[in-house]
Amino acid sequence: MKNLLSKILVALLLLPIAAFAADPLPSWNEGSAKKSIIEFVEKVTKPGSPDFVPMPERIAVFDNDGTLWCEQPMPVQFYFALDRVKTLAPHHPEWKTQEPFASLLKGDLATALAGGDHALLELIMATHTGMTTVEFEQIVKAWIATAKHPKTGKLYTEMVYQPMLEVLAYLRANGFKTYIVSGGGIEFMRPWAEKVYGIPPEQVVGSSAKTKFEMRDGKAVLVRLPELNFNDDKQGKPVAINLHIGRRPIAAFGNSRGDQEMLEYTQSGGGARFELLVLHDDAAREYAYGPAKGLPDVKLGAFTQALYDQAKKSNWTVVSMKDDWKHIFAFEK
Amino acid sequence: MKNLLSKILVALLLLPIAAFAADPLPSWNEGSAKKSIIEFVEKVTKPGSPDFVPMPERIAVFDNDGTLWCEQPMPVQFYFALDRVKTLAPHHPEWKTQEPFASLLKGDLATALAGGDHALLELIMATHTGMTTVEFEQIVKAWIATAKHPKTGKLYTEMVYQPMLEVLAYLRANGFKTYIVSGGGIEFMRPWAEKVYGIPPEQVVGSSAKTKFEMRDGKAVLVRLPELNFNDDKQGKPVAINLHIGRRPIAAFGNSRGDQEMLEYTQSGGGARFELLVLHDDAAREYAYGPAKGLPDVKLGAFTQALYDQAKKSNWTVVSMKDDWKHIFAFEK
Repeated sequence: MKNLLSKILVALLLLPIAAFAADPLPSWNEGSAKKSIIEFVEKVTKPGSPDFVPMPERIAVFDNDGTLWCEQPMPVQFYFALDRVKTLAPHHPEWKTQEPFASLLKGDLATALAGGDHALLELIMATHTGMTTVEFEQIVKAWIATAKHPKTGKLYTEMVYQPMLEVLAYLRANGFKTYIVSGGGIEFMRPWAEKVYGIPPEQVVGSSAKTKFEMRDGKAVLVRLPELNFNDDKQGKPVAINLHIGRRPIAAFGNSRGDQEMLEYTQSGGGARFELLVLHDDAAREYAYGPAKGLPDVKLGAFTQALYDQAKKSNWTVVSMKDDWKHIFAFEK
Repeated sequence: MKNLLSKILVALLLLPIAAFAADPLPSWNEGSAKKSIIEFVEKVTKPGSPDFVPMPERIAVFDNDGTLWCEQPMPVQFYFALDRVKTLAPHHPEWKTQEPFASLLKGDLATALAGGDHALLELIMATHTGMTTVEFEQIVKAWIATAKHPKTGKLYTEMVYQPMLEVLAYLRANGFKTYIVSGGGIEFMRPWAEKVYGIPPEQVVGSSAKTKFEMRDGKAVLVRLPELNFNDDKQGKPVAINLHIGRRPIAAFGNSRGDQEMLEYTQSGGGARFELLVLHDDAAREYAYGPAKGLPDVKLGAFTQALYDQAKKSNWTVVSMKDDWKHIFAFEK
């Protein structure tokens, strides 16, 4: 009797572990995408397997906008810049007539962004620099704690993809180091990436402004200068991966043209490799853009038809948000 | 009898652990320097202590040349560049008359270096770039496996300071992440830093050349360009720490003017902090330079009198290699 009881207790205790082992990706529907992730992780972690990869070399890189969280109708950092323009406007009377600020303050995004990359860079520099790195971190933390998505009314930090959080956790549970490699600002992401994604500051790579060492009141600070240091997009992503990580990733996750070179760089290493693109084809639960039917391409972060074709040719996993994801956001459940 | 035997066996098994716990820094003589390191580690790791620091924030940064390994008579990377000049000379007939190469090929270092930083940069670019990052890694690995110190005849990787290896291991055993932050080349250090110091590529920060993404024969590579990307020295060190790590270190170890801002930046954070400078004052076992009597300052990596005065004023620990270190190199023992 005692023996039987023990056996039952042990069985009950093992249940959640067994359940987890049986399905590390519960928000994914069964299908080739889910299967490809699990097969890759199992083969690189199985001792003695010809594809085995030692733990320190298990580096996985993730784009952020559109791969880990929603980038529609505009990337989140753009809304941050917009709110900063409103906050700073009283100190900048000249913005009333100066583009892109004048149009932004009137709520006319289309005209504001007609200036292209130049206007965007000017907007970012005017709203993201001039303060110390510590001050900027506080500004980002305060904003992200309350800022909400214009369509869903949810916090931006709730607009993260539950299936991708599961992939991050699954990889880490299998000895991977997970990195963000994003076109977004490195110091815009670091203040919340650990809490939201479990990715610490030293594993966040992104675009950056130059900073300058200064002594202020006897204390060493870094001041953010209105000058681009690095644009972590397209060809820049492998360059930044090499500079920050110094190892070639064995797995890369993206969703747009900006991620192409990162996926190519990952695939060009020897041994087992994994590349994945998220296809936004769910107009009902999120957005549909790129080669999927639905909304037209947006300028930033587009998953183009050419990229889709390359993915098929290169054997990259393409995830259909509509078909492959049981839930997109945790708040849906 | 059986009980007594068990007790003796347990006691014997515990001995090495107890010995390690009693002295984590066996190559250090008893004194204020050793004491300051241990006191700092104990107070930031003791739960409930007012100085307790959570594990992810235990970041320690180390200069390399003159702090972890010998930088005399010239920094090791300079000898690497010299050997590369000799290897490449047959492909560069113009070097016979072009400085700094002409003087280097004649063995006249003084004239070669009379061109200052400009000549040095030209030397580095001519010898360190033009190949892919993977090719450069192989070149460094092959060189470091056999290259020997001109005075001791030991491999450069044996010219590392045993007491500092113990500090690295002691910090890691106490939950610290240890980083190199060096003026030396990031891709010159990464190929051997893990084996020699236990510091993985992603925790090596240094100076860098620009790189460019290219597809070659269908494979993605990064080509090293003859253009400085970042000079990781003086004010550059805190800038690079912020870019790569994104946290302010709580401990910093250096030996020269090039490390001053890194130590100031570390000290300017809140809470318990630790800063250390290695003073080269042992002409018999290593070299004596800087404010110590003996050889005159060298241009690179000088520990100046001003820095020595600042260390005293700022309460930084100054290590006398002569008095504080029982052994300097493992091969001495």
